[in-house]
Amino acid sequence: MGGADGHLRLVDQTKLPTELVHLDCVDPPRVWEAIRELRVRGAPAIGIAAAYGVVLGARKAADHATDAPAFATAVRQTADYLRSSRPTAGNLFWALDRMGRALDRLTAAAAGPAESVAALLAEAHAIRAEDRAMCIAIGRHGAELMPIGAGVLTHCNTGALATADFGTALSVIFHAHAAGRNIHAYVDETRPLLQGSRLTAWELKQRGVPATLICDNMAALVMREKKVQAVIVGADRIAANGDTANKIGTYGVAVAAKAHGVPFYVAAPGSTFDLTLADGTGIPIEERNPREITHGFGRQTAPDDVAVYNPAFDVTPGELVTAFVTERGVLRPPFRESLAAAFDPPAA
Amino acid sequence: MGGADGHLRLVDQTKLPTELVHLDCVDPPRVWEAIRELRVRGAPAIGIAAAYGVVLGARKAADHATDAPAFATAVRQTADYLRSSRPTAGNLFWALDRMGRALDRLTAAAAGPAESVAALLAEAHAIRAEDRAMCIAIGRHGAELMPIGAGVLTHCNTGALATADFGTALSVIFHAHAAGRNIHAYVDETRPLLQGSRLTAWELKQRGVPATLICDNMAALVMREKKVQAVIVGADRIAANGDTANKIGTYGVAVAAKAHGVPFYVAAPGSTFDLTLADGTGIPIEERNPREITHGFGRQTAPDDVAVYNPAFDVTPGELVTAFVTERGVLRPPFRESLAAAFDPPAA
Repeated sequence: MGGADGHLRLVDQTKLPTELVHLDCVDPPRVWEAIRELRVRGAPAIGIAAAYGVVLGARKAADHATDAPAFATAVRQTADYLRSSRPTAGNLFWALDRMGRALDRLTAAAAGPAESVAALLAEAHAIRAEDRAMCIAIGRHGAELMPIGAGVLTHCNTGALATADFGTALSVIFHAHAAGRNIHAYVDETRPLLQGSRLTAWELKQRGVPATLICDNMAALVMREKKVQAVIVGADRIAANGDTANKIGTYGVAVAAKAHGVPFYVAAPGSTFDLTLADGTGIPIEERNPREITHGFGRQTAPDDVAVYNPAFDVTPGELVTAFVTERGVLRPPFRESLAAAFDPPAA
Repeated sequence: MGGADGHLRLVDQTKLPTELVHLDCVDPPRVWEAIRELRVRGAPAIGIAAAYGVVLGARKAADHATDAPAFATAVRQTADYLRSSRPTAGNLFWALDRMGRALDRLTAAAAGPAESVAALLAEAHAIRAEDRAMCIAIGRHGAELMPIGAGVLTHCNTGALATADFGTALSVIFHAHAAGRNIHAYVDETRPLLQGSRLTAWELKQRGVPATLICDNMAALVMREKKVQAVIVGADRIAANGDTANKIGTYGVAVAAKAHGVPFYVAAPGSTFDLTLADGTGIPIEERNPREITHGFGRQTAPDDVAVYNPAFDVTPGELVTAFVTERGVLRPPFRESLAAAFDPPAA
């Protein structure tokens, strides 16, 4: 964990780009709140934070539990509680399931609470280290898809803030830039919460990548003006046929990319693919507080009591995706086959 | 004019929806500033304001000019000055040209300054009255295109605030609602200046039309979800082939409508059509202050010194327009023929 005293230290992303504030989470409710309020956001970062949240709960349980079953029950309750913080985040469930399996192994081995806490912490560290390695692999695979001198449009934030390091879609841009491909990023501001302008533009600036900020409603225009030769976005959850749940607005970008013959890439680690979902109709879409739209900038910008539709995500059909960029390489259509071959290989 | 003492009284649209503030323009610089800073906006309202601005200049010139030529020169200078307030507004040029022709007639008739001021005021009143009649005609023609029970998506503000009364695209929604067609409006918030959430949502509420506010990046999703059966937008300038300059984001909505088989209508009076332009490539696109995007609502939402692209308009190709709704009826493709027949009839 990042803190000096065994707590989880996060950048409070709601304070960027004008303030860099660190948040010290000392217990699961602080982690839950940080996920719920988007202080930590980005599918992999949420999973990593939740894994450490389980460790914080386990540490408390070890102090109080009278026996191993009581300890295991308390840890499982923590995991269930953290699961309720974001209903759409596939990586959240994945990380909590993985922590749960580690707990199962410890229970089966009759490990004591102190030993279990150490093992759960090691598991959380492993999730973080593996995520970093995945981000680097995704960046390298994706960089080769970016044409030299290309304008590359991205939506929302999928960078180091959203992951252990580098990110997913932004890792591709970072690696393409580092490889001298002369990339220029176009950044959708990403209403309502402006993750693009607040976070992505900030990260690109930190790493020296040339970038231009636009409003979401300019994405189609910059494609028509041939400023953009590729789109790359992240994902929250991907079904077996390639249907992709991602930040609201992704679908509109995909429709525009298709209309302009611009390739539309989705960068995501294996943990984002949920091959138990046949297609995107099974993905629940969270609706968020109307005030994100009506009072989003510290000022009321809509009439009192106006009706608002505020879905946090949309689902882009697999037909609009040119390819998925994963740590195992670039996966192309037909996705039912290529995704299954990469992430759900038949038993040998 | 609206004021008690012969000045131009406007609603300051930058203060809506939380404050209803009236602005009294006593001289052309105040009118210029009101147009430039979008205190008055919407193509027809800008034209009307500019026409009254010419009268304000003429009144001052009548106080100071020593002879009729000096008066005419001063009025012409006022018109040229007002012309510089918004380079994309076709109706601005149209209204100023019309005031110029009135001045030509007065000059030819050797009218004195006082008589000329009265005649120019009558011309400005006529522009306003004709605009109101056009808005009603557009509303009636367009209402018949709206399916019973339809969700109707609109972008930006094209209502009473933008015109003498009722508006253009919003007039269609108002008239469809008044005719009992059971319309539900979907309102794009319209970044960066939020004319949709601040003005359109406010006007719909004032007139009791059911409406839902969305972010611009949700337009494609509500089409995919079959919440929307028609799109209707306004226009700033329309070329002979139907290419349509309108508020930034209109093009993206048109692309999404095409992809979903949703009809895309443009409502505009004859003064918006510029048949001297063969197509949209001749329409200059104003780029506005980056701070509209980075500091839009009293709060910085992007890193310092980020590069920004902020075109105020985009051009939607005529191929994406299902029909134009005008005061002369509904014009369908091929537009080169239907537009010319309506607005540029061959000499008999």
